[in-house]
Amino acid sequence: MTQGRARLNTLGPMDVELRVIACGLCHSDLHLINDDWGISEYPLVPGHEVVGRVVAAGEAVNGLAVGQRVGVGWLCGACLECPSCNAGEDNLCAVPKRTCLANVGGFASRIRVDSRFAHPIPEGLSDLQAAPLLCAGVTVYSPLKRLLPRSGRDVGVVGVGGLGHLALQYASHMGHEVTAIIRGPGKEKDAKAMGASSCLDSTDAAQMAAAEAGFDFLLVTVSADLDWSVYMSLLRANGTLCLVGMPAATIMVPIEFLVGEQKILTGSSIGSRDMTREMLDYSAANEIYPWVIRMPMDRVNEALRILADGEARYRIVLTA
Amino acid sequence: MTQGRARLNTLGPMDVELRVIACGLCHSDLHLINDDWGISEYPLVPGHEVVGRVVAAGEAVNGLAVGQRVGVGWLCGACLECPSCNAGEDNLCAVPKRTCLANVGGFASRIRVDSRFAHPIPEGLSDLQAAPLLCAGVTVYSPLKRLLPRSGRDVGVVGVGGLGHLALQYASHMGHEVTAIIRGPGKEKDAKAMGASSCLDSTDAAQMAAAEAGFDFLLVTVSADLDWSVYMSLLRANGTLCLVGMPAATIMVPIEFLVGEQKILTGSSIGSRDMTREMLDYSAANEIYPWVIRMPMDRVNEALRILADGEARYRIVLTA
Repeated sequence: MTQGRARLNTLGPMDVELRVIACGLCHSDLHLINDDWGISEYPLVPGHEVVGRVVAAGEAVNGLAVGQRVGVGWLCGACLECPSCNAGEDNLCAVPKRTCLANVGGFASRIRVDSRFAHPIPEGLSDLQAAPLLCAGVTVYSPLKRLLPRSGRDVGVVGVGGLGHLALQYASHMGHEVTAIIRGPGKEKDAKAMGASSCLDSTDAAQMAAAEAGFDFLLVTVSADLDWSVYMSLLRANGTLCLVGMPAATIMVPIEFLVGEQKILTGSSIGSRDMTREMLDYSAANEIYPWVIRMPMDRVNEALRILADGEARYRIVLTA
Repeated sequence: MTQGRARLNTLGPMDVELRVIACGLCHSDLHLINDDWGISEYPLVPGHEVVGRVVAAGEAVNGLAVGQRVGVGWLCGACLECPSCNAGEDNLCAVPKRTCLANVGGFASRIRVDSRFAHPIPEGLSDLQAAPLLCAGVTVYSPLKRLLPRSGRDVGVVGVGGLGHLALQYASHMGHEVTAIIRGPGKEKDAKAMGASSCLDSTDAAQMAAAEAGFDFLLVTVSADLDWSVYMSLLRANGTLCLVGMPAATIMVPIEFLVGEQKILTGSSIGSRDMTREMLDYSAANEIYPWVIRMPMDRVNEALRILADGEARYRIVLTA
C-alpha cells in the first residue's frame, strides 16, 4: 500500500484539501485492491470512509473553512447536472467520481476532493465514530429511510458485519421491530445490544421455516450469494428485499414471489449528499455509533487481512 | 368444454347465483385448461371475466338484489380474515377461492359466488365492455394505481394484447407519457389509438438502444420470457419493472441494476375487491373500454383457438 505518494489531484476552485485523521476499512476496498469489479486503476490508494481536516480550499469553495472537520465517502464528486444529480440523487450520477479511483483515497495522508462532497462532521461524533458512517452508515441508512416511510414494520437485517451492525441500530431507532438474521449463534448477544429484538439463525432450517412470511422488509448486507427463494419466503405479501452488497452477478428469483405475492426486489447504492448529511446528524442525535477497532495506519496490511478473514467486529478504523 | 353441467356449489347464506350474460376469454383460461400451473381440477369450467344477473341471493346477502347486474373476476371468494384480507388486499389472500377452481366458471350458464366478490357494474359499461375489465382491466389498473402515485411519468407497456391494450388506455388517462413496446410494427396504429404517444419495436436493436434509460416504469403484460437485462436497461435509475404475466418460472436479473441503479423488480396480482370496484367506476367515468370481439358461447372452442394463436385483437367475449 502506498501512503501519500500516489498522484494528488490539482486543487480545483471548488476543491478542498484534507489532512486525513482517520479512515474506515470497507469490503469495497478489498474489491478495489483485487480489481474484482474490473474498474481499478493502479497505482490505487484505497480508503473511502475518510475523516479529515480542511487544510486548503479552492477559491470558489463555499461553506467550508480551513480547520474544519469533514468526512468523505465513496464519492468525491459527481457531474451535478445529469437527471439523477438534478433529482438530488448524486449517488446515482451517470459519471460519478469515486474517491479511490478519481483520486487517492483515505489511506493517503492528504486527499483533495470536491468540497460539495466533503461533509461537515457533527460535534457529537468522534473521528473514529464518524469514519465508518461515511460509507457503511449511509449505505444502510438510505434504504431504511427511502423504502420504509412508516415505522413499526418487521425488519430483518441479513448479516451482522460492518453494514449490518449499523443497520440494526438505525432500524430499531426508526421504530421497527428488528430481527438479526445470522449464520450460527455467535453474534446474538452483540446483535441484541445493537437493537435486534430477536435473532434468526439462517443455518437452522426449522427456525427459517418458522419465520416464513414474518417480515415486511429484509435488508441484505452480506456479500454471499444466498438462496433468494428462502429469503423471499421470509417476506409477507408486498414485502421488500433490498440488497446493499454485491453478492452475485445475477439474482434469480422465482416469479411467483413477484407476481403472485407482489413482493419487491431492489437494491440501494450508498446515499446522496443530502442523505449523507442527514445520516450524520441522525447518528449524532440518536447516539448511533459504529463498533470500532482502531488500528494505526502503518498496520493497514494486517487490518486488511483481518477484514478479509471476516474478523473485523465490526469496523476497523485506521488512524493517521 | 362443459356448459352448465359441472358441479354447482350449494347457495350459501352470503352467496348469489348469477345467470351468465357474457364472459371474457383470458390466457389464464388456457393455462387452466392445460393445467400449466398444476392447480387445475377436472371437470373444469373456465371463464373468470363474468358478467351476470343475480337470480338468487342467500339469506345474509347485503347490498345486492335479484335482477342486479354484477361482475366476477379471478376470485369468487377469500377468507377475509388473513393479514392480507384484513389489509384490504384480498387478492393476496393466503387461501383464495378461484372462480374456475372453487366453482364453475363463466363458461357455465349459471354460477354461484360469494356476494362480496360480485361487483356491481356501472351503467356506463355494456356487458361486453365490462367483462374483460374484471380480470384484464384490474390486473393492469392495480399496479398503475399502486406503484405510480404521481402522474407525468414515462411509462412503457410491454405487449399490446388483452392486458396491454387496456394498460395503454389507463396509463395515458392517468396522465403518463405512454410508449407501447411491441414486437414489430403491426400494432402501431392501434396502440396510438389506445393512448400511446409513441411505439418502440422490441425487435429493432437500434430503437431499443436509443430508448435506454428512458422510462420510469415498465409494465410487462406479455407471457414471453424476455431478456430482462434489456428491459431493466430501459429504466432510469430508481425505475420499476412490474410483471403482470407469468412469463417464466424464474427471473434472472443482473445485480448492478438493483444495487447500482436502485431499480425495482416487482409484480402485481389481479386486484383487490376495492380496486376492482374503483377500476370499474374509473373505466365508466373515463370511457375506457376494451376492444372486443364478440362470439357466441357455443363457438367457445374456436374462440380458444383464436386466443391461443395470438389473434384475439384484443379480447374475445363470449355471450350466452
